[in-house]
Amino acid sequence: MKAYGKLDWAFSAGRIPFQSNGKEPDFISHEKIAILNTSEEEAKIELFIFYEDEEPSEKYEIELQPKRLRKVRFNDLIDPYPIRLERNYSCYIKSNVPVVVQFSRMDTGAAANANMGTMAFPAGN
Amino acid sequence: MKAYGKLDWAFSAGRIPFQSNGKEPDFISHEKIAILNTSEEEAKIELFIFYEDEEPSEKYEIELQPKRLRKVRFNDLIDPYPIRLERNYSCYIKSNVPVVVQFSRMDTGAAANANMGTMAFPAGN
Amino acid sequence: MKAYGKLDWAFSAGRIPFQSNGKEPDFISHEKIAILNTSEEEAKIELFIFYEDEEPSEKYEIELQPKRLRKVRFNDLIDPYPIRLERNYSCYIKSNVPVVVQFSRMDTGAAANANMGTMAFPAGN
Amino acid sequence: MKAYGKLDWAFSAGRIPFQSNGKEPDFISHEKIAILNTSEEEAKIELFIFYEDEEPSEKYEIELQPKRLRKVRFNDLIDPYPIRLERNYSCYIKSNVPVVVQFSRMDTGAAANANMGTMAFPAGN
Repeated sequence: MKAYGKLDWAFSAGRIPFQSNGKEPDFISHEKIAILNTSEEEAKIELFIFYEDEEPSEKYEIELQPKRLRKVRFNDLIDPYPIRLERNYSCYIKSNVPVVVQFSRMDTGAAANANMGTMAFPAGN
Repeated sequence: MKAYGKLDWAFSAGRIPFQSNGKEPDFISHEKIAILNTSEEEAKIELFIFYEDEEPSEKYEIELQPKRLRKVRFNDLIDPYPIRLERNYSCYIKSNVPVVVQFSRMDTGAAANANMGTMAFPAGN
Repeated sequence: MKAYGKLDWAFSAGRIPFQSNGKEPDFISHEKIAILNTSEEEAKIELFIFYEDEEPSEKYEIELQPKRLRKVRFNDLIDPYPIRLERNYSCYIKSNVPVVVQFSRMDTGAAANANMGTMAFPAGN
Repeated sequence: MKAYGKLDWAFSAGRIPFQSNGKEPDFISHEKIAILNTSEEEAKIELFIFYEDEEPSEKYEIELQPKRLRKVRFNDLIDPYPIRLERNYSCYIKSNVPVVVQFSRMDTGAAANANMGTMAFPAGN
């Protein structure tokens, strides 16, 4: 199988919800990306976070084995430092091999049962 | 009409919900793809499933008549073997003729009435 | 301004909901596309509907003035004949000038308040 | 980092909801775009609004610093004039440097708790 996907991806409308209702860790409000590496090589992936009113962050580094899927919660990124909740951010994603990236959000805090479902779409340019 | 679409597609954030509320089979939680073949030829389609912690599956094979639509529920794939519920997976889709693929999820189990709607988006690269 | 968009579009996961709750016509369950023509010319648009188990329909024809938006409800298409409710269909859209097409669904019938929101995404290939 | 994104974007299915439930300004129903500028240059962005039954508007102009994110609420656009609520519109977005644009809607008015979640997708062509 050929390596499928693109070398870079981005989404601009990130914002990690603050409130959560439900059991940890499944129902903690979060934003995540699912990354698929169909290639025969390990993917070395860099995430760059952008803000409205501050310099972009140092990059976050992630590795992903060949022919594997990996989910990354933005809530869990802590090196170089965590992303503040309820702060608008954008993300640019760069890989050394083609990958497929899909973004989704789960918001269990707002307005009782309105946001329990996850929202997902392909990150794109 | 020309054959419209692409020869390969993928989505990375698959996960078949476990719980269901409602009558079978319409309200069983599921994930599916809708495939459109506008061409004059039968489409021979291969699905490859990827996981976080295991080798990818053998391929699943699907055929689709010319100028027809076909829906495929991931819950119903059993050959070579079924996809476990509540397990993260990704899917790479390969066709011999251009096709259009759209992914959707129905989750009738979580949090009462929150997820009854289907979520759909074009699978992309 | 240049003419922006593409000459053809498609979505595969169409299905007009049967049940509705609420006042006509705003809360009638429906599926629609919003078409934008940024060009200086009238757009002549053809819609082709595909099914799971039957030949595709004759084409539906739509016109759209230059520099205008037009919404088309699939419920309202009657020439050559209406699309049956709760029947899976796909749609291929062809234009003589570049246009932008976005698909959305409003389902006011299922499960009380679950599907009142519209779901929208760019139709794509 | 290279400048990432595209020079033009569009969405066709705009409509700012009229009713709101909740505290201002967070729960005011609105439509917005999140724009990411990864480049080293200030982005000069023009928004063109299209209608069903009227000439397109004069352009709205927005600036966005290098390596920054900016959210723009369509409710807040007032120069040359505001967009009427509950009126269908489309938007064409043009930039002098590549940017990433994502559209989202929050509708807090319709049907109690059904639309509290935001709906987001990449604007596309």
